[in-house]
Amino acid sequence: MNDFEKLARLACPLPHNDDGVVQMAHGGGGRKMAQLIEQMFLPAFQSDTLAQLGDGAVVSIGSERLAFTTDTFVVQPPFFPGGDIGSLAVHGTVNDLAMCGAEPVALSLGLVLEEGFAMADLQHIVASIAAACSEIGVSVVTGDTKVVDRGKGDGIYINTSGIGRLRSGIHVGPQRAAVGDAILVSGPVGDHGIAVMAARNGIALQTELKSDSAAVLPLVRAMLDRVPTVKTMRDPTRGGLATALCEIAVSSQVGIRIDESAVPVRPEVRGACELLGFDPLYVACEGRFLAIVPAEQADAALAAVQALPAGAGARRIGEVTEKESGRVVLRTRIGSHRRLERLSGEQLPRIC
Amino acid sequence: MNDFEKLARLACPLPHNDDGVVQMAHGGGGRKMAQLIEQMFLPAFQSDTLAQLGDGAVVSIGSERLAFTTDTFVVQPPFFPGGDIGSLAVHGTVNDLAMCGAEPVALSLGLVLEEGFAMADLQHIVASIAAACSEIGVSVVTGDTKVVDRGKGDGIYINTSGIGRLRSGIHVGPQRAAVGDAILVSGPVGDHGIAVMAARNGIALQTELKSDSAAVLPLVRAMLDRVPTVKTMRDPTRGGLATALCEIAVSSQVGIRIDESAVPVRPEVRGACELLGFDPLYVACEGRFLAIVPAEQADAALAAVQALPAGAGARRIGEVTEKESGRVVLRTRIGSHRRLERLSGEQLPRIC
Repeated sequence: MNDFEKLARLACPLPHNDDGVVQMAHGGGGRKMAQLIEQMFLPAFQSDTLAQLGDGAVVSIGSERLAFTTDTFVVQPPFFPGGDIGSLAVHGTVNDLAMCGAEPVALSLGLVLEEGFAMADLQHIVASIAAACSEIGVSVVTGDTKVVDRGKGDGIYINTSGIGRLRSGIHVGPQRAAVGDAILVSGPVGDHGIAVMAARNGIALQTELKSDSAAVLPLVRAMLDRVPTVKTMRDPTRGGLATALCEIAVSSQVGIRIDESAVPVRPEVRGACELLGFDPLYVACEGRFLAIVPAEQADAALAAVQALPAGAGARRIGEVTEKESGRVVLRTRIGSHRRLERLSGEQLPRIC
Repeated sequence: MNDFEKLARLACPLPHNDDGVVQMAHGGGGRKMAQLIEQMFLPAFQSDTLAQLGDGAVVSIGSERLAFTTDTFVVQPPFFPGGDIGSLAVHGTVNDLAMCGAEPVALSLGLVLEEGFAMADLQHIVASIAAACSEIGVSVVTGDTKVVDRGKGDGIYINTSGIGRLRSGIHVGPQRAAVGDAILVSGPVGDHGIAVMAARNGIALQTELKSDSAAVLPLVRAMLDRVPTVKTMRDPTRGGLATALCEIAVSSQVGIRIDESAVPVRPEVRGACELLGFDPLYVACEGRFLAIVPAEQADAALAAVQALPAGAGARRIGEVTEKESGRVVLRTRIGSHRRLERLSGEQLPRIC
């Protein structure tokens, strides 16, 4: 161990209550993962940019403001109704750039393939990556392929990192939500999680539910063109809508209230959740986003999103309140109030 | 399948002779991997930047010329003499940026952890990442953590992607080598591969051989400050020195000749290779680089590298010849000539 390592070790404590080993919950997007990041990664890396914990980092290079983001996809199964790990990897990273207020410029692609993975499946996934890129208008410009021994992977894992260029005049960030702001969601929540879960377990849902996996970029563009004063955007992936709101409430040190009856959830998602004991507010989306906007701009922002077919299901679901700093409260259908907490892990592991 | 997918599928044929499944050799950096890239990835992604197949891509954003690169590390074991998967991930990506003639600006970090991986090992690796970053002066600005079920990983896989800013006045690229240019290597080759192999198999080498894993940035800076006309740089990782030279010969459409007696190889690496039937010219380095420079600048470039302790072992090993376009020839110690080909896969899998 050299001096640098000693120094870094000192600044990098073990997270508490972890039983000494990595658990599935450490990757679930919930409280356990937050502890790992806050107690181990942030002290070690000491980066102001990382510490903001947005969907991506904003990096200034010369006169350019760039967004930079990374995501590894380990979704199981790799093919599911409405998409596959390839399209998901492109959508996920482009959406993270969009959430920073950036236009995507270039993607990288890192593949970890398991020995014995079917070439035809790889071909399908590569085609799907190419199709998603071409639909969005972004290119894979650099890549890396690794193969691991049979039994040391799960077919395919994909890392996509992305560079985007920040739109001028847009200043969004997880810490910018303020009292009085309105909260919008771009469509029904939970489709992705339930579609993947059904595919994983061979459950035939009554209707043909598909993942919402998609690039939110066209919707975000339409909204920002109309309302450049949007404060915060976030895509509710692992941990779903509730977790994304909890993170914003903490980052902005505000209280948030949402109305259960206003949150769009498809009947088939609600039905599957009731059957399986899930809460749709915690189920992952991969083609939706949350926007926090000044109240007086909320109607205009909502109209801009709803004007596009993919945004027809957008709704205003709540507001930023002054009470209970850092807390998210749900006003239920019967009018009572319930605090939404981050789960320890996640209801559905390996959803993305 | 939508139209985009159909389109992409058409442009994305299966590689030949692959038996229908992914093999270890597809990740080995040799001919099999090149086939996968050339026959499946390049037609699918149709990116001019990707098609250049440098260590990273050069992307222009506004007035800035940026380098962008990605690498996933699956080295087994994750700890080895001279480094670990964490420091290796930082060195590997920073070196790829350096090979583009770029100064590193920001790194991303994507972790795939296997359920049950020891937190203490993760802590060690995170500290090692932080230490390597701090030594180089680059930051991890964005990250992602995924956990996969026990038996679906191998402890830890790390993706690091990096953004760098191209030094002004430097124009390096794999296609720029020209007849008459001299070929330099920054130090003895094969240390990393043999050190990892020894650690993997519990082989006690006679001397304490360490991986050469290190950032080559200080050496590259010193060389480029003195000789800005350097044509091509490449770090000989998977597939070693021979494979890197083969790739350059093909990209630049030139013939290359190197002198076996001029290539620095440590006696303990040579000994281990003889014992195990490896060719040190194909064994991976993680802290060395090749530079192709105009012959009249070769002495100056070599002196600049040798002036630093880490570059003391740098040597001039050969030249770009006009004969046999695209071929690499070794002049052996006894004066005969042997063509160096790309291996099908790699001698040592999962070396990085």
